[in-house]
Amino acid sequence: MNKTYLLTPGPTPVPPEVLLAMAEPIIHHRSPAFRAIFRECREGLKRLFQTEQEVLIFVASGTGAMEAAVANIIAPGDRALVIEAGKFGERWTELCQAYGAAVERILPGWGHMCPAADVAAKLKADPGIRAVFCQANETSTGVCAPLKELGEVCRNSGALLVVDAVSALGAMDIPTDRWGIDILVSGSQKALMLPPGLAFASVSPKAWKVVEQLNRPSYYFSLTKTLKAAQKDQGPYTSAVTLMYGLRAVLRMMADDGLETIFARHRKLSAATKAAVLALGLTLYAKDNPSDCLTAVEAPANIDAQDIVAKLRDGHGITIAGGQAQLKGKIFRISHMGYISGSDILLTVAALEQVLRDLGHSVQLGQGVAAAQAVLSQP
Amino acid sequence: MNKTYLLTPGPTPVPPEVLLAMAEPIIHHRSPAFRAIFRECREGLKRLFQTEQEVLIFVASGTGAMEAAVANIIAPGDRALVIEAGKFGERWTELCQAYGAAVERILPGWGHMCPAADVAAKLKADPGIRAVFCQANETSTGVCAPLKELGEVCRNSGALLVVDAVSALGAMDIPTDRWGIDILVSGSQKALMLPPGLAFASVSPKAWKVVEQLNRPSYYFSLTKTLKAAQKDQGPYTSAVTLMYGLRAVLRMMADDGLETIFARHRKLSAATKAAVLALGLTLYAKDNPSDCLTAVEAPANIDAQDIVAKLRDGHGITIAGGQAQLKGKIFRISHMGYISGSDILLTVAALEQVLRDLGHSVQLGQGVAAAQAVLSQP
Repeated sequence: MNKTYLLTPGPTPVPPEVLLAMAEPIIHHRSPAFRAIFRECREGLKRLFQTEQEVLIFVASGTGAMEAAVANIIAPGDRALVIEAGKFGERWTELCQAYGAAVERILPGWGHMCPAADVAAKLKADPGIRAVFCQANETSTGVCAPLKELGEVCRNSGALLVVDAVSALGAMDIPTDRWGIDILVSGSQKALMLPPGLAFASVSPKAWKVVEQLNRPSYYFSLTKTLKAAQKDQGPYTSAVTLMYGLRAVLRMMADDGLETIFARHRKLSAATKAAVLALGLTLYAKDNPSDCLTAVEAPANIDAQDIVAKLRDGHGITIAGGQAQLKGKIFRISHMGYISGSDILLTVAALEQVLRDLGHSVQLGQGVAAAQAVLSQP
Repeated sequence: MNKTYLLTPGPTPVPPEVLLAMAEPIIHHRSPAFRAIFRECREGLKRLFQTEQEVLIFVASGTGAMEAAVANIIAPGDRALVIEAGKFGERWTELCQAYGAAVERILPGWGHMCPAADVAAKLKADPGIRAVFCQANETSTGVCAPLKELGEVCRNSGALLVVDAVSALGAMDIPTDRWGIDILVSGSQKALMLPPGLAFASVSPKAWKVVEQLNRPSYYFSLTKTLKAAQKDQGPYTSAVTLMYGLRAVLRMMADDGLETIFARHRKLSAATKAAVLALGLTLYAKDNPSDCLTAVEAPANIDAQDIVAKLRDGHGITIAGGQAQLKGKIFRISHMGYISGSDILLTVAALEQVLRDLGHSVQLGQGVAAAQAVLSQP
């Protein structure tokens, strides 16, 4: 017996009933039966994105939807403003540069976030900036962007607000239309509790105007082609039939729970995890706007974070994530997105206590668990 | 009870044991356990592609791998030669144009194919042509390209040979290296018996030289990024974990059968289907090089092919495909790719006989079945 637990910030565990839904026999992607599934997913995604606009579905990992956003609104020579607060912010920069944009970057430093006023100042200095790119939750650091305020800033400018919510959608409250987010992209393998393979993008009327005006020669990631097909309840190319079975299943589960309940659960799991690591004498990596999606923790000075990750995996069957790029060995990351319960957090904290002690960090066993329990037992 | 049968040229049925393999719990895409799966898939794909080169894996439908081929070897202004013999040939043209190529097209007419000599003449007239694009099996018409001869033509020229084998790979013998195919692209949802969502591309040393020399700013579909990650047994972004479980399972099944057995099965199923429709007084749509992947059939003059498709589906639970674009209503297409047995063909032919009779076509019940049986019972 080798029982395992997955607490990485993507992919995340898929509920067994959803795995079984995806084991249903394949049907044709242009059949009436499949179009009914597609239609239900369209409606469910609109509720999840909190938008009246169409939510486009791509067969791709989340980066595919990020590329779709850039490819359709950036022409060579356009100016783009990127809040680059971690590895996924860097991805926006790389994508914008790949499509010929002149990129201006705001660099708050990893673990930090800039205020929306910094973006307002940049847009004032250069009103020709085509779009502002940011992460709702920067998964590499566990820091959130001030989306509501950024929406206010961009709404009164010519710039589009493009948000990577690959990990945040379905974990945190992001009212797309109300906050004026022009393109919100997400993926299947995080808070949506699905395997990797689907990516999503909502597009505001303001963004559609830019898409139509630029008419970029995008093909696989063309927003226009994808919209036209969606209006007939299908994809422009072959849809990922089994993942769509799964999407329908999770959208039904999430509708049963209700968004408010889901967001409250993430808040509580996040607070419990953060209370636990603080009780163990550890330090949160996120200095500004810590995320409810995951908890990024600094390893004690004399311990390699990769050792913590490896010992949790090999000794306890628990997979968490280490740090990416320059944070490798410095931090570890515990996800509480999607199909994660309070008990999952408690067993992870318990194992973490043992691992830290084994690695020579002074820990009183049960202290982190108790701190998490105290939060979880609140009404 | 509503038992159904899927005989469309993609997606195709997935074996139940593969569906269950994909219902295994999710693991992290950078974990040692997943890298072992990735490594096994790399090796299996090389055998399937009959190549010594790396076979790159994309999270995308087949069109994504087609875009990867074009995006990495076409610079604006390059000349491209497309054998446009159907809807998927048109897709090569559209993709090449989206990336700024000046496209010269050979138009053999739908249902037909040009000889390789036509391509040789074009390459002689314009030795600067960057690449020749074709379909191993043009799924819209059921016609094959003369790949071996095209390989000989291109090998002695500066042009790359780029082949869409989305539906042909795993159904027909395509020795990639031996025939000198520079880029061979394929997808998961046809002869590979998987759900849609994975796409593949092999790249020859001659093609890698062009990729490196051009250094196009491709991102999600970058061949270079994908190769670098594959050499560490992972994808550049989040791999489609469940589909990779399935890929490992089908590659094992195909290795057990052996490629020769698999190709012979497709040849026999194809011959049986073609014999059956001819015995029913129908006409094959493919006038040149009919494919072993699917059988495209002209509907009788006074019958709408879409009615045949609808009656098979609604009356018999059998899903086949109609014609695409200008062939809609004119032809229907029966697939015999992947997880299809002789019995599947017999039941489909039997139902087709009944449907044709119901629609007023003179049919002697059992005549098509008998013709198929005669082929299937040959040693």
